[in-house]
Amino acid sequence: MVRASLPLALLTLSSLGLAGGGQGQGTAARASQTPVAPGGPFDRVYLPQHAPSQQDRVGFPHEWLAEYASPERNAFFAAPATAPQWLRRGVSWQYAEARAWPLANPPYAAAAIGEASGDTTATQWMGNAVGVTAVDGVIYAQSDDQFVYAVNARTGQLIWRTSPVPTTWMGQPLVQGDLVYVNAGTVGFNFSNLQTFAKTGHAVRGAGVAYNGIYALDRQTGALRWHVDTRGDVMPTPALDQGRLIFSTGAGDVFAVDARSGQPLWHTTLGGMGNMSSPAVVGGKVYVGMSAPALLYCLDAAGGRVLWKATVPQAVNTSLGDVSPAVAQGVVVTDAITAPQTSGQTTTVGATVMAFDAQSGQVLWQHQMPRGPKPPSYKGGVPMIHGDTVYVGSPVDNLVQALDLHTGRLRWSWQVPDHSAAGSARGPATYHDGALYIATVASVYAVDAQTGHLLGKKEIGGRFGIVSPTIVGGTMYLGNSWDWLIALPLSQVNPRAHGQ
Amino acid sequence: MVRASLPLALLTLSSLGLAGGGQGQGTAARASQTPVAPGGPFDRVYLPQHAPSQQDRVGFPHEWLAEYASPERNAFFAAPATAPQWLRRGVSWQYAEARAWPLANPPYAAAAIGEASGDTTATQWMGNAVGVTAVDGVIYAQSDDQFVYAVNARTGQLIWRTSPVPTTWMGQPLVQGDLVYVNAGTVGFNFSNLQTFAKTGHAVRGAGVAYNGIYALDRQTGALRWHVDTRGDVMPTPALDQGRLIFSTGAGDVFAVDARSGQPLWHTTLGGMGNMSSPAVVGGKVYVGMSAPALLYCLDAAGGRVLWKATVPQAVNTSLGDVSPAVAQGVVVTDAITAPQTSGQTTTVGATVMAFDAQSGQVLWQHQMPRGPKPPSYKGGVPMIHGDTVYVGSPVDNLVQALDLHTGRLRWSWQVPDHSAAGSARGPATYHDGALYIATVASVYAVDAQTGHLLGKKEIGGRFGIVSPTIVGGTMYLGNSWDWLIALPLSQVNPRAHGQ
Repeated sequence: MVRASLPLALLTLSSLGLAGGGQGQGTAARASQTPVAPGGPFDRVYLPQHAPSQQDRVGFPHEWLAEYASPERNAFFAAPATAPQWLRRGVSWQYAEARAWPLANPPYAAAAIGEASGDTTATQWMGNAVGVTAVDGVIYAQSDDQFVYAVNARTGQLIWRTSPVPTTWMGQPLVQGDLVYVNAGTVGFNFSNLQTFAKTGHAVRGAGVAYNGIYALDRQTGALRWHVDTRGDVMPTPALDQGRLIFSTGAGDVFAVDARSGQPLWHTTLGGMGNMSSPAVVGGKVYVGMSAPALLYCLDAAGGRVLWKATVPQAVNTSLGDVSPAVAQGVVVTDAITAPQTSGQTTTVGATVMAFDAQSGQVLWQHQMPRGPKPPSYKGGVPMIHGDTVYVGSPVDNLVQALDLHTGRLRWSWQVPDHSAAGSARGPATYHDGALYIATVASVYAVDAQTGHLLGKKEIGGRFGIVSPTIVGGTMYLGNSWDWLIALPLSQVNPRAHGQ
Repeated sequence: MVRASLPLALLTLSSLGLAGGGQGQGTAARASQTPVAPGGPFDRVYLPQHAPSQQDRVGFPHEWLAEYASPERNAFFAAPATAPQWLRRGVSWQYAEARAWPLANPPYAAAAIGEASGDTTATQWMGNAVGVTAVDGVIYAQSDDQFVYAVNARTGQLIWRTSPVPTTWMGQPLVQGDLVYVNAGTVGFNFSNLQTFAKTGHAVRGAGVAYNGIYALDRQTGALRWHVDTRGDVMPTPALDQGRLIFSTGAGDVFAVDARSGQPLWHTTLGGMGNMSSPAVVGGKVYVGMSAPALLYCLDAAGGRVLWKATVPQAVNTSLGDVSPAVAQGVVVTDAITAPQTSGQTTTVGATVMAFDAQSGQVLWQHQMPRGPKPPSYKGGVPMIHGDTVYVGSPVDNLVQALDLHTGRLRWSWQVPDHSAAGSARGPATYHDGALYIATVASVYAVDAQTGHLLGKKEIGGRFGIVSPTIVGGTMYLGNSWDWLIALPLSQVNPRAHGQ
């Protein structure tokens, strides 16, 4: 299935070998790798003095293989007793990324473009769209400000930043061995794609608007090791499994490349377009949603063969491609915005959660969340599975619901108390010690996982996109659409939480 | 017609007063103006030691009021005998902007996305799309690398750079008094606009993808004075006339604001969308092309009333909006890609040049350039008028033609000798001393203005977008899609040229 030998390859590997790995390479060599002027504002910055001490690495995971940490999408890591006290008690800092906009401010330009567009424009073109990665005392983050960051998890000091190519980085860095993987791509279309879509219903997301692909960076220094270029965007986060890096594109392809070298392994053209659904890889199978048409696919991780595909009845065309599925105990859960109905000036939509047998694709159950006004871009909520419960939000009614993983029975509903013109409850919750931590609108909430009762709230400001709190020990790490990285103790959100 | 008082204003002014003008303001004040982290990579850099000496300002124009310098679109300025010798003989330098990609390289990522898409992606997302501005010894440039630059015209050293907001800057800075005006906007669409266009044929270019509007900067330091925010993109360059700054947007509006304060004066909703047509203002009238539908408008500059509108028979929908009209001697010249015909896999198009009476809009003449394969995005060439001749290129057949301004009679055709997958001959030629200087593909050409014979060529590398050479004395200034600013002596292009 590899087509790298065709005149216009679907995927092109540029391997920089060792040249990109060290600090000693000349500026000419760096200049010829990607469009970055040596010494200019996009040039890589590396501050080794800010790297974490050996002691400050203890208690963190050692790798990060999937969006929101795992196929369950629960980004929590317990800190052992040997972990430093700051991590167990919780540490607090805010790091201003390149486009940092004061967290207390309304969205930039909201007076001209409206609150909803101000929110989504900031999320998609300026700040952190997805959650952050915590590995060995370092917070790694991709931002739509064109930069990728590595920051000390204790101090919030910059270790490195890099911007190898002009793009928004709509994902969560993956980390394994000495590499960090980041995904280049953007949510826009050019006019040619606009016209093609009007004629054929098909378009290649990201084509001709910024650059698209995978960039593998040296974990310690941020230096570029290799990149693979694709025609459509790569959004959001890929998945790492068994030495393979697996990702979908805005051209409707799914690729697997060798995670060490970037060499292509297989590709499968599904059609439609990838959007904001990160693949979940479990038991040798890849689960990924695609847009236009809205379909959930199961592929063989070793060869890319489609094993089954499914949809949600009356799903709107973008819906399944907007949701990263959650997988646990042989159950795949996803959701879709469904059944739009327009009456006069207003369009309402439904929100449907569906569970499939991970092996066969058979429908296990289906659950209707309440109808409500159409949220911008018809987005869905990312489900999270803990134990035998799935927690899932809906921007349609700004709800989070807890459902039985095996039957879909509703356990409770929690209404997000803050209103947002752009819809809330998109990112998955993070479960820890009986509480769900939910980052949405401008706050982080703690909700009792058994009852759905509010336990506490910390207002942060700005906006949280499709962000789940990344929790290590007693510290929560967040990315914000106003282009900030944030650390705060769990106890600031949840009065019941205490040092671990 | 001003609607700034409506809940969702079409245009919103943020005036920073004196706070943005000086160098002494605190970082907190700067941080709250636009999304830029103080001390971060997008923060303004100001190096007063690189400003030109008094002597090095002599010979340059003192203001810049229109794209390509004037409504004729001829960016030539004679240097008097008092001008410094370096300017008259010609100076040579190359300045690497933030995304500089080696000029000898093929387009970045071309192996994956193809040569044509590699060319246009670099032009629209990484480098200089339009020509540069030369005023009082300083070269001002907007780049799609998110930065605006002021560079010393003699030395090529950076005086300031700034990136007040995440956007591509697709235009040529205007300069008057102590202000530099730059236009924020981008060529992309979001998915919501894709769906709206498929249903209604209408979309708002630039909405939800980066930020759009006008930014007025301190000419000496690059500090932000005020900005007006708009819903659609502002592309390309506005026009300055009688204290008014006039510009179109991707939402189909034309605005006039007070050039000193940014206060709205009038706006007119034309429909369709602005694209890459910069208004020409002559004799109290504004001439501007719009896309989808393709129309050329004449508006009253004082109040925004539509005086007449016209089209080109069988024009494709984007065409007139892609061309900045040229106006001289009571004649408005524009051109359009016309009459697409598809046979099997290939689509061919015509290219039609039309002249209108500037007062009445009556058609004066029409000229057919040869048919050929459809260029990417159906682009047209920007006409330039010198004396009683109009020079106009066509990317369809990579031709430049000389036509009688009053009759449209063909005087000569010149074929661009280099081929380009993305089409050539889009920017206007610059006339000086019997020669036309044409920047296209990866070279600058000198062509005899009387005969159309090639006089000389200088290969630069990279790609020239809709760029006209800006010529002052014996020096030519260029912006390149590979994100470089370039100065070179005319004599390097044209063996007949000599020190002025």
